[in-house]
Amino acid sequence: MAPDSQANSQAALATAMGEAAELVEQEIDHLLPMSELTEAKLFEAMRYACLGGGKRLRPFLVLNSAGLFGVARDCAARVAAAVEFVHCYSLVHDDLPAMDDSDLRRGRPTVHKRFDEATAVLVGDGLLTLAFEVLADPATHEDPKIRCALVAALAKAAGMHGMVGGQMLDLIAETTEFDMGSTTRLQRLKTGEMIAFSCCAGAILGRASQPQAQALHNYAHDLGLAFQIADDLLDIDGDPAVTGKPVKRDAAAGKATFVSILGVERARDQARLLADQAARHLDIFDGRADMLKAVATYVVERRQ
Amino acid sequence: MAPDSQANSQAALATAMGEAAELVEQEIDHLLPMSELTEAKLFEAMRYACLGGGKRLRPFLVLNSAGLFGVARDCAARVAAAVEFVHCYSLVHDDLPAMDDSDLRRGRPTVHKRFDEATAVLVGDGLLTLAFEVLADPATHEDPKIRCALVAALAKAAGMHGMVGGQMLDLIAETTEFDMGSTTRLQRLKTGEMIAFSCCAGAILGRASQPQAQALHNYAHDLGLAFQIADDLLDIDGDPAVTGKPVKRDAAAGKATFVSILGVERARDQARLLADQAARHLDIFDGRADMLKAVATYVVERRQ
Repeated sequence: MAPDSQANSQAALATAMGEAAELVEQEIDHLLPMSELTEAKLFEAMRYACLGGGKRLRPFLVLNSAGLFGVARDCAARVAAAVEFVHCYSLVHDDLPAMDDSDLRRGRPTVHKRFDEATAVLVGDGLLTLAFEVLADPATHEDPKIRCALVAALAKAAGMHGMVGGQMLDLIAETTEFDMGSTTRLQRLKTGEMIAFSCCAGAILGRASQPQAQALHNYAHDLGLAFQIADDLLDIDGDPAVTGKPVKRDAAAGKATFVSILGVERARDQARLLADQAARHLDIFDGRADMLKAVATYVVERRQ
Repeated sequence: MAPDSQANSQAALATAMGEAAELVEQEIDHLLPMSELTEAKLFEAMRYACLGGGKRLRPFLVLNSAGLFGVARDCAARVAAAVEFVHCYSLVHDDLPAMDDSDLRRGRPTVHKRFDEATAVLVGDGLLTLAFEVLADPATHEDPKIRCALVAALAKAAGMHGMVGGQMLDLIAETTEFDMGSTTRLQRLKTGEMIAFSCCAGAILGRASQPQAQALHNYAHDLGLAFQIADDLLDIDGDPAVTGKPVKRDAAAGKATFVSILGVERARDQARLLADQAARHLDIFDGRADMLKAVATYVVERRQ
């Protein structure tokens, strides 16, 4: 793509991401209202974990993959919120002292710092459970077969053979030397599966044909890897004032990353290659997939 | 019931509970096999958290409520395992240092003692997610409407308006004086909702009529309260060698319990009253509900 055209599409993407983030913010606010109950602190902390921040990349992928098939925006928004609940739960648990022990997230104190550790454990548990409650609700889709498919796919992406398994690998990587293959698998499980679910959710909601579903799956695969390499690069040279989180944590923990294995230059090249490849998988959707294609560029060029 | 007849039914119950526990053990072993993957420690720790112990009360309720409607045993066993996954996840997180800080569970080191704290967080997350994966799987029931109803009901019982909400109340109860009404609500959320789900799961699987579902719901409500009062009594006068966990933890934490509010004698009377009342709700099922009626007696007379 010519530089001018790329700048234009990135500007359009920024607007679209802002609108999507606003929509998801409203949906989360609706699904997780404030409370006057004795246990209100739980709801307050769950809202703190989910509202007011984040790129909302996964919800954006849900909304835009659903958009390819003309899925009703309010249905897609519920699924987008569910994905964000799972993403935020994983961050809250990941930040715990026993895990990454992070004090800062999106430029604010993490949940266990702002509230306390016990509350943070329950916030994560509550958000994960809420995600499934939202998906199984008839308001998400009239067809129980589609609701069930969403629950099954999310559970697979988030569970022991997906994100949770990846987090376990991440713990093991602190004391074990991982090669390129193991690192790729770790990242596919830890972040790739949830990104893949976000793209495939649109295909499930929209009853995509097999080739369409496969195209989204391939896109998600390359996008997820590109995203992770870019994340590793930000851990090396990101600005904590922009990313909202500390840098050089992986290096300090002695963990293998794409950057430690490939070096900065080759890692950056690889990320761009994957982003281009991701976009090309969507050629079968013609112009309808322009936003999703632009996201691929965004994830490798972002500064946060 | 005459003492002899009660002794007989309790003996029959013990046999039936043993058989059900064996069935659930096999199902869990099947759903959560050992692994050769790099992250095998996660699966090992999940198995440690779920296998080889516990009364399996909730799975027993699932199997027997399903039995009222002639539900296929292998379908009910999957739901029973899912309920146990959620129960065990809640125990693993509850035992964490930031929560109850328990070293001992079922007479064995808790997951974070046997493994480590980070693994214990992930074990809980993985088990909770697995429960939904199992319920949404077509192997659990051919009708996606029923699978969806199970997912929705479990998410409600386990989430912020159910068990997780109850655990938050439990934390708040450490520093706030709870009266009888608040204590009842705390216990209904913390343990009652999951017991209710276990009984209602059979009604969902068996497409129960409204009066049948209501009868099971009323039974579960009274059973749950009776169970909790009995638990509070065991916390006072239980034998740690039999219960497998330390005693007098509630009193030490300064928490209001049914026993601290009612006193031992009235609490015991109340538990027996509730157990009788629970059993009577099932009269509409005639002899088919004898096991469930016997469970009501069991939960108040048990020593563990």
